[in-house]
Amino acid sequence: MKSFMDKDFLLSTATAQTLFHDFAEHTPILDYHCHINPQEIAEDRRFENITQVWLGGDHYKWRQMRSNGVDEYYITGDAPDREKFQKWAETLEKAIGNPLYHWSHLELQRYFGYTGTLNSKTAEEVWNLCNAKLQDPSMSVRNIIRQSNVTLICTTDDPVDSLEWHKMIAADPDFPVQVLPAWRPDKAMNIEKPDYTDYLAKLSAVSGVEIHSFADLKEALKVRLSFFDSMGCRASDHALEYVMYQPASDEEIEAIFSRRMAGQIPSYQEELQFKTAFMTFVGKEYHRLGWAMQLHYGTKRDNNTLRYNQLGPDTGYDCINTNGSSAEMAAFLNGLNVTDQLPKTIIYSLNPVDNAAICTVLGCFQDSSAIGKIQQGSAWWFNDHKVGMTEQMTSLANLGLLANFIGMLTDSRSFLSYTRHEYFRRILCDLLGKWVENGEYPADMDVLGKMVKDISYYNAVRYFGFSL
Amino acid sequence: MKSFMDKDFLLSTATAQTLFHDFAEHTPILDYHCHINPQEIAEDRRFENITQVWLGGDHYKWRQMRSNGVDEYYITGDAPDREKFQKWAETLEKAIGNPLYHWSHLELQRYFGYTGTLNSKTAEEVWNLCNAKLQDPSMSVRNIIRQSNVTLICTTDDPVDSLEWHKMIAADPDFPVQVLPAWRPDKAMNIEKPDYTDYLAKLSAVSGVEIHSFADLKEALKVRLSFFDSMGCRASDHALEYVMYQPASDEEIEAIFSRRMAGQIPSYQEELQFKTAFMTFVGKEYHRLGWAMQLHYGTKRDNNTLRYNQLGPDTGYDCINTNGSSAEMAAFLNGLNVTDQLPKTIIYSLNPVDNAAICTVLGCFQDSSAIGKIQQGSAWWFNDHKVGMTEQMTSLANLGLLANFIGMLTDSRSFLSYTRHEYFRRILCDLLGKWVENGEYPADMDVLGKMVKDISYYNAVRYFGFSL
Amino acid sequence: MKSFMDKDFLLSTATAQTLFHDFAEHTPILDYHCHINPQEIAEDRRFENITQVWLGGDHYKWRQMRSNGVDEYYITGDAPDREKFQKWAETLEKAIGNPLYHWSHLELQRYFGYTGTLNSKTAEEVWNLCNAKLQDPSMSVRNIIRQSNVTLICTTDDPVDSLEWHKMIAADPDFPVQVLPAWRPDKAMNIEKPDYTDYLAKLSAVSGVEIHSFADLKEALKVRLSFFDSMGCRASDHALEYVMYQPASDEEIEAIFSRRMAGQIPSYQEELQFKTAFMTFVGKEYHRLGWAMQLHYGTKRDNNTLRYNQLGPDTGYDCINTNGSSAEMAAFLNGLNVTDQLPKTIIYSLNPVDNAAICTVLGCFQDSSAIGKIQQGSAWWFNDHKVGMTEQMTSLANLGLLANFIGMLTDSRSFLSYTRHEYFRRILCDLLGKWVENGEYPADMDVLGKMVKDISYYNAVRYFGFSL
Repeated sequence: MKSFMDKDFLLSTATAQTLFHDFAEHTPILDYHCHINPQEIAEDRRFENITQVWLGGDHYKWRQMRSNGVDEYYITGDAPDREKFQKWAETLEKAIGNPLYHWSHLELQRYFGYTGTLNSKTAEEVWNLCNAKLQDPSMSVRNIIRQSNVTLICTTDDPVDSLEWHKMIAADPDFPVQVLPAWRPDKAMNIEKPDYTDYLAKLSAVSGVEIHSFADLKEALKVRLSFFDSMGCRASDHALEYVMYQPASDEEIEAIFSRRMAGQIPSYQEELQFKTAFMTFVGKEYHRLGWAMQLHYGTKRDNNTLRYNQLGPDTGYDCINTNGSSAEMAAFLNGLNVTDQLPKTIIYSLNPVDNAAICTVLGCFQDSSAIGKIQQGSAWWFNDHKVGMTEQMTSLANLGLLANFIGMLTDSRSFLSYTRHEYFRRILCDLLGKWVENGEYPADMDVLGKMVKDISYYNAVRYFGFSL
Repeated sequence: MKSFMDKDFLLSTATAQTLFHDFAEHTPILDYHCHINPQEIAEDRRFENITQVWLGGDHYKWRQMRSNGVDEYYITGDAPDREKFQKWAETLEKAIGNPLYHWSHLELQRYFGYTGTLNSKTAEEVWNLCNAKLQDPSMSVRNIIRQSNVTLICTTDDPVDSLEWHKMIAADPDFPVQVLPAWRPDKAMNIEKPDYTDYLAKLSAVSGVEIHSFADLKEALKVRLSFFDSMGCRASDHALEYVMYQPASDEEIEAIFSRRMAGQIPSYQEELQFKTAFMTFVGKEYHRLGWAMQLHYGTKRDNNTLRYNQLGPDTGYDCINTNGSSAEMAAFLNGLNVTDQLPKTIIYSLNPVDNAAICTVLGCFQDSSAIGKIQQGSAWWFNDHKVGMTEQMTSLANLGLLANFIGMLTDSRSFLSYTRHEYFRRILCDLLGKWVENGEYPADMDVLGKMVKDISYYNAVRYFGFSL
Repeated sequence: MKSFMDKDFLLSTATAQTLFHDFAEHTPILDYHCHINPQEIAEDRRFENITQVWLGGDHYKWRQMRSNGVDEYYITGDAPDREKFQKWAETLEKAIGNPLYHWSHLELQRYFGYTGTLNSKTAEEVWNLCNAKLQDPSMSVRNIIRQSNVTLICTTDDPVDSLEWHKMIAADPDFPVQVLPAWRPDKAMNIEKPDYTDYLAKLSAVSGVEIHSFADLKEALKVRLSFFDSMGCRASDHALEYVMYQPASDEEIEAIFSRRMAGQIPSYQEELQFKTAFMTFVGKEYHRLGWAMQLHYGTKRDNNTLRYNQLGPDTGYDCINTNGSSAEMAAFLNGLNVTDQLPKTIIYSLNPVDNAAICTVLGCFQDSSAIGKIQQGSAWWFNDHKVGMTEQMTSLANLGLLANFIGMLTDSRSFLSYTRHEYFRRILCDLLGKWVENGEYPADMDVLGKMVKDISYYNAVRYFGFSL
């Protein structure tokens, strides 16, 4: 029996252990997609206690607490932080087989030096230990990032954002980690939302372009695209229910937009047509700028109206949407490719059963303009665990070239989540190790070691074109 | 090499063996969902021969015999029981990797003391051995249940059922096992069926409520719900093509119902609207009564018209339906939850690719009104095998709290199928054992043993609120 | 650690090794579905170099080269063969976990005696070695087939094909391998294609039946069906986006056909209705002739318009189509079965998530007219790898009788691909071996050995009714 989460955690073969410890473990981290707040980096925030760090905004943990019958008072409510932590410890004990079990203990090991088990009985000890450690200057946001061996972070930002915090961080010679914006224009696309025109007013203000038509909207976005590009942005991000392709004429799109400006919410079909036009426009812009386009789809959000009205979005009430169509996804990419304007693209589905279909769509649009031009993104959100990562990488290897994979990102709101890169790398090394030890690939450690380092870091550096 | 189906069958690690033998093996059985006939318990039925027990109504076995090219004469036809058994033995020999291979041999081991292999050559020996044993009083239905360590059984019953056999069993002090009804109102919902109004006439008769409107139907159902509740019912069950949510106004529903009473079969859209209204009504009733709502979906039934006309329903001609929508399922649950009337709910899909989507829907509706309030049901019907169970539990663990799972049910028409609980527990212990021995969870046998016992039995006792 | 691809490649247990070496390895090959050109067999073609053999038409390899950022010049373009081979070697090195890695090395081992690793450094050595070997008469097409222990090959042929090469091969007493046609009438069904009427003109010419109506088309097809049957054809093949069932009256079908003859492309709904009528007609003919019907579905083809215009079809731009409906598939089979005219049928989906649904559809239409009458085809195209094959056989075993499976086919355009049968058999033996060594099936090597030989070869001989 292996010891609980020791140095060879998840590394079941000698080859896997060598690959991890000799090649993966000390390779830097490039976190090209996350949701951390740049202001907290700029201000080098510190935390009072472990509940703030862990339970302040982590809807992954909130969901598990609700699954354990914990009252909302101890989750998003006003319970004292110590009591919330106790409820979390009781919940975690039941989370056998859940990635939160591993993430939590990796964070306790790496950042707090605690190698025991967090449960209802040890909660008090862990609470004290963590809180003491958090008082140490080494646990400021910047120092956590530094000690995690991170070289570059892409945040997630709205086109109207001033990027002031990014500017401040870039101007500070004492902090060498690059913190770059990523462009997420969902609010500019989501024409069906009640506050869409309010958003356009903001976009108009920051861009200096009056928006009366879809053509105007595109002009305004171009202004902001240029600004983001000047700030080092190399990637966009889109949250889509599914990757739709419902083309319509320019006139139809302008008519839909015009009616929306007059207050009329479009039909679902019109919404899809507008979004198709929007995505086609921005896709071509990304191609022009050399950016990568990230498509996140397969989500149905805010399913619990009762809680949404109390807590708002991103509070743990989202689920997998099962209605994706590979044919429409392929048609959308083809629509950009046919004029040779398809940008580098990374596709993520929340539905793990889409793995094979996505990998076969990728293969239809690869070309010599980039190595691994169209990528399947790393196992995302609900799939961000040993099984999900293993399945995603196995599918990618079965159907494409795993060696060209750009690898892991945290997608996280937490500064302690860089251990997820370690988690990913252990799983990657274990997968490769099993193949090698089963005689399915030669035991050439030079080739394999390079592959591990590439997938862990260097492929992403090259793919996005970062200066590192 | 492990011996064939020995005491450590499916238990591949020392941890798994300890968990099974020390914690799971002797824990009682609560079979909260099955299709056995309460009359046979009340009358303490005995069987003449093993063909009666095994092949009398088991469409799982019938399908395999047909896959082996066996003529219907030996399956549902008039062939002598000995000849039918021979055809089954020949078929079973080919069923490597099939759960029927394991179930059949577990039943031979546990109930008949036969530890050999059933095949075409041993069929005569097994036939004689089983039939001799069946003459023993220990093989009456009640004694089989007793020796299986069963404490409580929920049958599946129509709202019009008199529950007379349940009353008789309950009144008998010599049989301590609780045999409770479960409420399955499919016939009251399936407005598109030709005999729908005939059914309503029966419901009207037993409830004493004249049914001229949907409002009347609801009144009649309430009468029967009260009766079932008084008989100890704690669970409902629904067979759905998919979990639909197509809301309509009360007036529209009444109009659909009214036209149906006049003989007009509704359109598919109207059918979905009516069923949405029906399910919403009963869901709120279950919440009021504290019952659990079981939703079984993903089935397309009676696909072979030729055979249906000869043999009727439930004869082995059903398949997985692939058209489920997680978004509609979430919307249906939300429709109940928004007024705080969502009952405890257990969701089962016949399509194993729905595992992840279901687990993410669960997470949107958990709250402090129950521990694990929304459950994914155990791997169901076509998924009721080692792979299916392992995948369902792995998915549940990846996305929720496996420790709160209410576990196994037989869903069976056979009195020998309690060994499926043993089969499930072996798979559960093996899964936990692998995680522990791989260093993914601490080897704390107190915590793990409690987890095994809870999933095997105690979670279900608590969840349904049975008095045990 | 196992050596790289040695004699026990993929055989992880002693039982698996015995099953493969004693039962599978020397059993003949029946390749009942492939795309090789019979002319090349008739003319006993020889190849100049390994690039011709491997990269001449293999879009599996082309896709991987594109994934590696290789320019089209080195793929389908005019680059020298040696340079193309270099690019392929560089690509292959990155293909860890990909079946092409195993197929390529199996072919190098079995046909060229090369047991090393092909990569960018060894490419020159391998190039020279292979090309020298290809000059040897033993490497003619016929000799490759002979040394591969192949007894029978079914090609894929259009109804208008003269089958002249098949005649020539059959007339040659020096080549004992049967090369039979298989009937693939896609062009006669695809009413939506621009060149549909051109095709009908050809069909009319070869059949001697003037085609003015759907009734005429059926008559013309009957003429060609008889011809194919006289040439030994025992199997049909259909490429379907999905298995549709949208029945319409004879009059409606004739009207759709009539409008098409007048130049009007049907609507999508009409297209589905016409295809349903077409498939129903040919299905009944196959039943009359005793042929097997192969349904390949789940494909979206030619997704890259830019490349399609340059390179045409079958050049590596296809993907999985996710819109299959198990309910329509069942309804289509039922439509044939209800008049007792359902032929033996083999169902393949490109979407691996359909495995379970397909296996449950099979079970609805099995009967005593054939053993394993309705089959799930071997893991197809994008699924033709260790994971895909293992999943397909596991699903088949879980839900049906694996012992009746008709097994592997190459589906290939290459004469070196018979090693895929070896690959399949290794995976099959490993799967069975694991079950046996885990105590899930008795270690009866007579029964298991027969099972392996049946699945490898004898089931297919019997199923199709070949004279061997």
